[in-house]
Amino acid sequence: MEGKKCVKVIPLGGLGEIGKNITAIEYDKDIVVIDCGIAFPDEEMYGVDLIIPDITYLMDNKEKVKAFVLTHGHEDHIGSLPYILKQLNIPVYGTRLTLGILGNKLKEHFLENEYTLKTVEAGETIEFEDIKVEFIRNTHSIADSCSLAIHTPIGNIVHTGDFKIDYTPIDGLVMDLERISELGKEGVLLLMADSTNVERQGHSLSEKSIGQTLNRIFSTATGRVIVATFASNIHRMQQIADASVKYKRKIAFSGRSMENISTVAMELGYLHIPEGTMINVDDIRNYRNEEITIITTGSQGEPMAGLARIAFSNHRKIQLEPDDLFIISASPIPGNDKLISKVINELYKKGADVIYEALEDIHVSGHACQEELKLIHSLVHPKYFMPVHGEYRHLKHHKDLAKSLGMEDKNIFIMNTGDILQLSEDEARISGRVHTGRVLVDGIGVGDVGNIVLRDRRYLGQDGMVVVVVTIEKESYSILAGPDIITRGFVYAKEAEDMINKIRDIAREEIENSLSNNQIEWYVLKTNVKRSIERFLYDETKRRPTIFPIIMEV
Amino acid sequence: MEGKKCVKVIPLGGLGEIGKNITAIEYDKDIVVIDCGIAFPDEEMYGVDLIIPDITYLMDNKEKVKAFVLTHGHEDHIGSLPYILKQLNIPVYGTRLTLGILGNKLKEHFLENEYTLKTVEAGETIEFEDIKVEFIRNTHSIADSCSLAIHTPIGNIVHTGDFKIDYTPIDGLVMDLERISELGKEGVLLLMADSTNVERQGHSLSEKSIGQTLNRIFSTATGRVIVATFASNIHRMQQIADASVKYKRKIAFSGRSMENISTVAMELGYLHIPEGTMINVDDIRNYRNEEITIITTGSQGEPMAGLARIAFSNHRKIQLEPDDLFIISASPIPGNDKLISKVINELYKKGADVIYEALEDIHVSGHACQEELKLIHSLVHPKYFMPVHGEYRHLKHHKDLAKSLGMEDKNIFIMNTGDILQLSEDEARISGRVHTGRVLVDGIGVGDVGNIVLRDRRYLGQDGMVVVVVTIEKESYSILAGPDIITRGFVYAKEAEDMINKIRDIAREEIENSLSNNQIEWYVLKTNVKRSIERFLYDETKRRPTIFPIIMEV
Repeated sequence: MEGKKCVKVIPLGGLGEIGKNITAIEYDKDIVVIDCGIAFPDEEMYGVDLIIPDITYLMDNKEKVKAFVLTHGHEDHIGSLPYILKQLNIPVYGTRLTLGILGNKLKEHFLENEYTLKTVEAGETIEFEDIKVEFIRNTHSIADSCSLAIHTPIGNIVHTGDFKIDYTPIDGLVMDLERISELGKEGVLLLMADSTNVERQGHSLSEKSIGQTLNRIFSTATGRVIVATFASNIHRMQQIADASVKYKRKIAFSGRSMENISTVAMELGYLHIPEGTMINVDDIRNYRNEEITIITTGSQGEPMAGLARIAFSNHRKIQLEPDDLFIISASPIPGNDKLISKVINELYKKGADVIYEALEDIHVSGHACQEELKLIHSLVHPKYFMPVHGEYRHLKHHKDLAKSLGMEDKNIFIMNTGDILQLSEDEARISGRVHTGRVLVDGIGVGDVGNIVLRDRRYLGQDGMVVVVVTIEKESYSILAGPDIITRGFVYAKEAEDMINKIRDIAREEIENSLSNNQIEWYVLKTNVKRSIERFLYDETKRRPTIFPIIMEV
Repeated sequence: MEGKKCVKVIPLGGLGEIGKNITAIEYDKDIVVIDCGIAFPDEEMYGVDLIIPDITYLMDNKEKVKAFVLTHGHEDHIGSLPYILKQLNIPVYGTRLTLGILGNKLKEHFLENEYTLKTVEAGETIEFEDIKVEFIRNTHSIADSCSLAIHTPIGNIVHTGDFKIDYTPIDGLVMDLERISELGKEGVLLLMADSTNVERQGHSLSEKSIGQTLNRIFSTATGRVIVATFASNIHRMQQIADASVKYKRKIAFSGRSMENISTVAMELGYLHIPEGTMINVDDIRNYRNEEITIITTGSQGEPMAGLARIAFSNHRKIQLEPDDLFIISASPIPGNDKLISKVINELYKKGADVIYEALEDIHVSGHACQEELKLIHSLVHPKYFMPVHGEYRHLKHHKDLAKSLGMEDKNIFIMNTGDILQLSEDEARISGRVHTGRVLVDGIGVGDVGNIVLRDRRYLGQDGMVVVVVTIEKESYSILAGPDIITRGFVYAKEAEDMINKIRDIAREEIENSLSNNQIEWYVLKTNVKRSIERFLYDETKRRPTIFPIIMEV
C-alpha cells in the first residue's frame, strides 16, 4: 500500500462516546471534515458546560482542510463550530435548515457573517480537489438531514449520518434509498453507519405515529396544552401545531432555542403554521386556556429550561394553572431520568396533568433499529465497514450485526477516536493514530479547565476544604499570628468547634516543632501540617477534605 | 373525633421519595414503627454516603414506642437501624431472613448482641398494649418478605410492604392471598400499598421466568460465567446456582454483601447449594474456566463493587479472561445507567461477552404492576387508602388506580412525610404534622453535614476557589506580607498566571485603599476584596469561584 495514494478516515471524535461527532476524510491534498459536534459533560466533570473536540490534527494540516460538510443540525454534529471556526476558518456546507440553525448559533456568539456557509440541496455534489461529497436525503428527528457519499479516486465511502428509515415522514421527503442502492451497485469501499439504536430489535416507528396520539390527547384537553420537546425536532413541532390548529388553539413558543429554531424553520419553509395561529407568549393571557398550546424547551428536566421553570413557579411569563395538561414528548437521555422525574412530581403536586413516555406513546426515536440497519447494509454491501456514533457496546453490536449479514470480521473496524483507517482499493488497515482529545468549555473559558482542575473540584466538592494560615517571623522563627483555621463544605463550623480547635492545636504543634528545630523548609513544614491534619480528620470523620496550609513570612 | 381514641398513621419517611421507608402507627399508649430504611443521596448531595430518617417524633414519644416491625430485608427498609437503634433501643421484629441480614449489618457496625431481635414466622401475630401486628407472607425480590395487618381497637390496617404477586415463587411459598381476602371480608379501615410499579401495565413476570433464560445461556457458555445481581435477591442466587449445578459448574461468591448474605441465607436454609459445589473465590484457579460460576456485586456499575473492579482490572482476586461471559441480572436504578454502560463498554473492549437487560430477559421486577395492585385493592376493599413507597407521581397514579376501582377521592390520602393521618371508625383526616427530615451520613459523621455544608461543597465543586491571604500590621496599617493568591479547581495556575497577578493587584489595591482611609473594619474590607475579585473573574471567565479573603493581623 505504501507509495500508492490512500484514503485516510480519521474520526476526531464520536467513537466510543456519545456526541462530539467529527471525522476527517483525507486524500492527497484534500481533507474534508464531516460534522463538528459537542458532547455533554458527565457528572464527574464538575462545572464543565460542554466538550468540544481537539483539532490539533486539522490545524497541523491546515492547508489541506477544504471544508466542513454537515449531515444535519443537531448539537452533537454542529455545536462545536462556533468555537472551532475561530481556529479554522474554512467553508461550511450543509442543507438550508442545517445552516439556518448554525447561522443562529453563530449569531449568538456574535460571529455572524464571519464565516462562509454554503447551502447544498440533498442530491447535490460538492467537488474539492480529489474528493467529491454527495448529499443524500435521509430521515431523522430533524428535518433536512442527509447521509453522505464521499467519492474518492480510490473508491466511494457512504456515511449514513444519523438516520432512521421513516416511510411516512411529515414533510413527505423519504430517504433516498434509490441512490443508496445505486451506490451499492456501483461498489462502496467503506460504509460508516449510525450505531445508536443497534441494541433495539425491529424497526423504529414513524414520526407520523405521534400525530395520532397527539390528536387523541388534544381532543379531550380542557385547559392549556403545554408540550415540552426537543427544539430541533421540527416535524414534532409541526404535528403539535397541526393538532393545535385542528382543535382551534393558538400556538406560543417558549424558550430561547425553541423560539430561535421555530423562527428559522418557518422562515425557511420547514415549519408551516397558518397565519394568525402563532401568538407571542406574552399574549397568552388574552386567550382562554382551552385556546392555547405552548411549545417549550426543557423536555430533559433541565432546571434552567422552560418546563422546569413553569413547574417550580419561576418562569417569568408562564404561570402554571391546575387545568394545564403537560405533554413531555421526548425520551430521557441516560442520566436525566431523575431531573425529569422531579419535574413530573412537581407538576402533579400543583394539580396539573402530565403525559409522558411511561404512560403514552408520545415519542419515537430518530435512529435506525436493527432491521433498518440491515436494510442499509444490504443495499450498500460495502467492502469495509466502520460502525460510528455510539459507545463501544454499540459499535460492538453493530459489528456483530454486520457479521450476521455475512461480512468478514477482518473487514470491520471498531476504531478509537484518533485512529487512522487507511484504505486502498484492495486493503484497509489501522495505520496509526493522530493526536485528539477533548477540550472543556467552562463559562467563556475554552480549554483552561483540564484534568488537574477537575480533580481538585471533585475533591473540594466531595469533602470540602480546610485552610490553615499562619504568619511567621523569619528572623526569630516565631509565630506572629495564627494558625487560623477556615473550613468550607466540611462540617458546619458551629457544630464542630472542638474539631477546629484540635486542628489548630495540631497545626501549631507541627509548626512550633519545626521552627524550634530550625526546620524552615516551608515545603516540608506544609507537608507535615497537611499530613497530620489529614490523618486526624480521617480518623475522626472518615473524610478527606483538601487541606491548604499557607505560611506568610514577614 | 376529638375525645375519642384514634389511630394515627405517621410516615416518617418514604413518601414522595424513593427509600428511607419508615412509618409510625400510634394508638393510645402504643407506637409501632414499620421499617426503618435508608435512602441514597442524589448527585447534588456532594460527598454524602447515605440518608437516614429524622426520628425526633419517636424520641419525643420514647415511652410509647414499642417496637420496629420489619416487612423485609432490603436496605431501604432496614438500612437505618444500625444508626437509629443507637438512639432508640427497642425490640425489632422480623422474619428469620430479615433479621439474619439485619444481624449481619449490626455486626459490621460492631453492634451485635446490643439489641433485641425477635424472630417472627409469617402467619404469626405480635401483641402490644392495644396494637397487634400480624405478619402475612408475600412475594418480593427477597425471600421471607411480609405484608402486615395492624389490628387496632378502631379497625385493621393492611400494609402491603414491598410486594409482587408471584404464583410460582422459587421457594414455593406463595403470597397468602387467602388471609388478605379474609381480612378484606372482616373489613379493613386503611390500606397502605406499594406504588413503585403503578405506572406499569399488566402483571409482573414470575422470578421463575429468569431460570429458563439462565439455563439457555449457561448451556452454551464455554468459559467462566460471571453473574452480577443484587446481593439480597436470594431466589435469583438460587436460580444461578441451579443452572450452575445443571451445567457442572462450581460457584464462588464475590463481594462483601454477596458473601455475607449468601452465607446467612445458606445458614438459615433459604439458599440451597449442594455439598461440594461452593468454592472460595481464591480457589477458582484450581478449576477450568468452563467449571466456574462467579456471583458478584456491582450490578449497578458501582465503581467500587465487584463487577466494575473486574472490568477495570483492579479486582484483587478475579482477573478478566476473554472467554468470560458476564450476565448483568438487574435493571439500572434511575441515575445508574451511565455507570453500568461504562462497565459494559469496558468488558466488551477486553473481549468478554456481556448479556444485559437490553439484550435478554435477564431480570424481573419485584414490585406489583397495575393488575396485581387491582387484585389487592379488590380483595382488601378498604374504607380508606394511602398509597406508599414512591415519588409523588407514583402516589398520584396509585390514587387514580384506586379511583378507577370505585374508591371515592375523599377517602384516598396522598400524604407527605410527617403528615398525620388520624383515623376513627367513621372518619379519616390529615390532622397535623410532626417534625421529620433527613439526616445525612458522611463517613462516620451522622448529621453533621447540613444544607450549608452541601451548598458550599456544590459551589467549590462547580467553580473551585480562590484564597486571598494578607498579613497586616495593626499599628502602622500597612501590609507586611501578601496578598498571596492560592487557587484550586478554578483554572490551571500555570496557564493563568496573568489572571492570578491581576487578582493580586485587585486585592492589594482594595486593601491599600481601605488602610489609607483608616478603614480597618476587617469584615468590610474582606467583603470589598471578595466583591471586586468576584466581579473581575465573572467578567473574565463567566465563572464564580468561591473567594476567601483571609487577613492576618500582627
